[in-house]
Amino acid sequence: MEGTAVGVDIGGTKVAGGLVTADGTVLSTARRSTPGASPAETEGAIVAVVAELTAAADELPVGVGVGAAGWFDRSGDTILFSPHLAWRNTSLRRDLMRRLRLPLWVGNDADAAAWAEYRFGAARGAELALMVTLGTGIGGGIVLGGRLQRGAHGVAGEWGHMRVVPDGRLCACGNRGCWEQYASGTALAQTAREIAHSSPAAAAALLERVSGRAADLTGEVVAQAAEAGDALARELVAEVGHWLGQGIADLSAVLDPDVVVIGGGVSALGEAVLGPARERLQRALPGRGFRPGPQVVAAVLGPQAGLVGAADLVRAESG
Amino acid sequence: MEGTAVGVDIGGTKVAGGLVTADGTVLSTARRSTPGASPAETEGAIVAVVAELTAAADELPVGVGVGAAGWFDRSGDTILFSPHLAWRNTSLRRDLMRRLRLPLWVGNDADAAAWAEYRFGAARGAELALMVTLGTGIGGGIVLGGRLQRGAHGVAGEWGHMRVVPDGRLCACGNRGCWEQYASGTALAQTAREIAHSSPAAAAALLERVSGRAADLTGEVVAQAAEAGDALARELVAEVGHWLGQGIADLSAVLDPDVVVIGGGVSALGEAVLGPARERLQRALPGRGFRPGPQVVAAVLGPQAGLVGAADLVRAESG
Repeated sequence: MEGTAVGVDIGGTKVAGGLVTADGTVLSTARRSTPGASPAETEGAIVAVVAELTAAADELPVGVGVGAAGWFDRSGDTILFSPHLAWRNTSLRRDLMRRLRLPLWVGNDADAAAWAEYRFGAARGAELALMVTLGTGIGGGIVLGGRLQRGAHGVAGEWGHMRVVPDGRLCACGNRGCWEQYASGTALAQTAREIAHSSPAAAAALLERVSGRAADLTGEVVAQAAEAGDALARELVAEVGHWLGQGIADLSAVLDPDVVVIGGGVSALGEAVLGPARERLQRALPGRGFRPGPQVVAAVLGPQAGLVGAADLVRAESG
Repeated sequence: MEGTAVGVDIGGTKVAGGLVTADGTVLSTARRSTPGASPAETEGAIVAVVAELTAAADELPVGVGVGAAGWFDRSGDTILFSPHLAWRNTSLRRDLMRRLRLPLWVGNDADAAAWAEYRFGAARGAELALMVTLGTGIGGGIVLGGRLQRGAHGVAGEWGHMRVVPDGRLCACGNRGCWEQYASGTALAQTAREIAHSSPAAAAALLERVSGRAADLTGEVVAQAAEAGDALARELVAEVGHWLGQGIADLSAVLDPDVVVIGGGVSALGEAVLGPARERLQRALPGRGFRPGPQVVAAVLGPQAGLVGAADLVRAESG
């Protein structure tokens, strides 16, 4: 279906929206902060963003697509679980339907990003594309044979919670040893803090950046230090890359994709994380040397992938 | 397509075939041993089995389906890799085509078993069914939306080689810590031998079964001891079940299946292995309590699943 659609991406503290054309171009954007991040506040922000974008548009959008960092059921009606947001069994879709009165797609933000990269970005033409978004945690999406795949209950692609280390680091999901505790911005910060505690001398340059307060070492701080050439920070980034590559090897054993797209905030580090990931994948891919592995590529749509994908998904469903 | 098809299952030391009807009934069987397990010997055995079954049939079969424990490329033309057979880049399909002159499906044995369980067995009606065969290693197959899924290069479902323990047990694939080193007949034997070496007194009853020779402790011996009530053997079987359940939890994070079918030799232990697997899955499923998990069910087609599935797959392709 031609015409524009609104795409909305719900983050932890903001709602970002865009008016998106049928070829994935973002014509205009709008955003609201949601410091409280409550479901009610978020809903209000979505409605405001959609109203702002619609008012400025030439014609009524064909629909609204909303991506959020939650686990949705297959209908998209209910957020089942959200390790990183305060949502449990929230009926976001039904509430928005009532207020927006436009065709609506509601679903997982990494699913939306996967779809955007498949339609307009780094995974165009892929037979089986996997999206891995590296942020606070790891998000995922699967596009197989030209269709977004969401599993039997709607929650496929949650590979951030594969267990990669028995009795490993505690995860927000309640388990231990989840992949996202080793390959994410959180992992970067966690390892930096561990080293700052165990070997403050080794982490001196990093600690200087946070006035000596190890607790203030975030993923962003470590990423900035790495980009500035700090040796320890670069090592920590490479370690995240190695864990990323190992996880991609595991996903290749399970799914055998031809393309794996790496997105999310941490992927802004580029080759500093992708290089070690590819290197590890080459050594860890089961059957390596006898079978092709996936291409590991950087996302090209950046932070707008989620809203572009959500807009295209509501267009696809209403078309 | 109506009429019978021949299904063939290639094992390590034998080739088993069956004449299979369109509803999955096995009308007659034939087998040949292949003690040398060379590709040439195996090919000869397949041709002999097909000839025997065809000679006894009322009419010419519609085709021949062959399943083997190898990793096939997407066309089925080439065996890329076989951790447990002496096959590397073998063109089984082309060689058989020349000799059989019948429509031919050649592919992975666990894929064939997955298809059989979906069509006629424990996964009928599933939206997304995964097959996990526990034998010497772990085989796997994926049926999604009524179609066998083989990944971008033909080797999806090789989850026996997901790494579940960093720096873990060495695997025949060349990696360390693969799932099949913890949940398989090999794993059962390996742990039994480790205990026999470290605590011979604890393993006394098990060692009696092999005249004190720890090296003779196979998966079968441990399984028999467990069935006879040996406490240590039962514990080892339960441990395999726990690793099985953990791996199913990981696969659920990735794929979100509604049914997981457990087949292969070790699954003959039934609830002794499935009970602990379900228990572990319940405690390890990411998002448990907020989302449905898969049903974990025993395969119902037994050792004939592979040949029944292979026969049905050639029928489907020629139909």
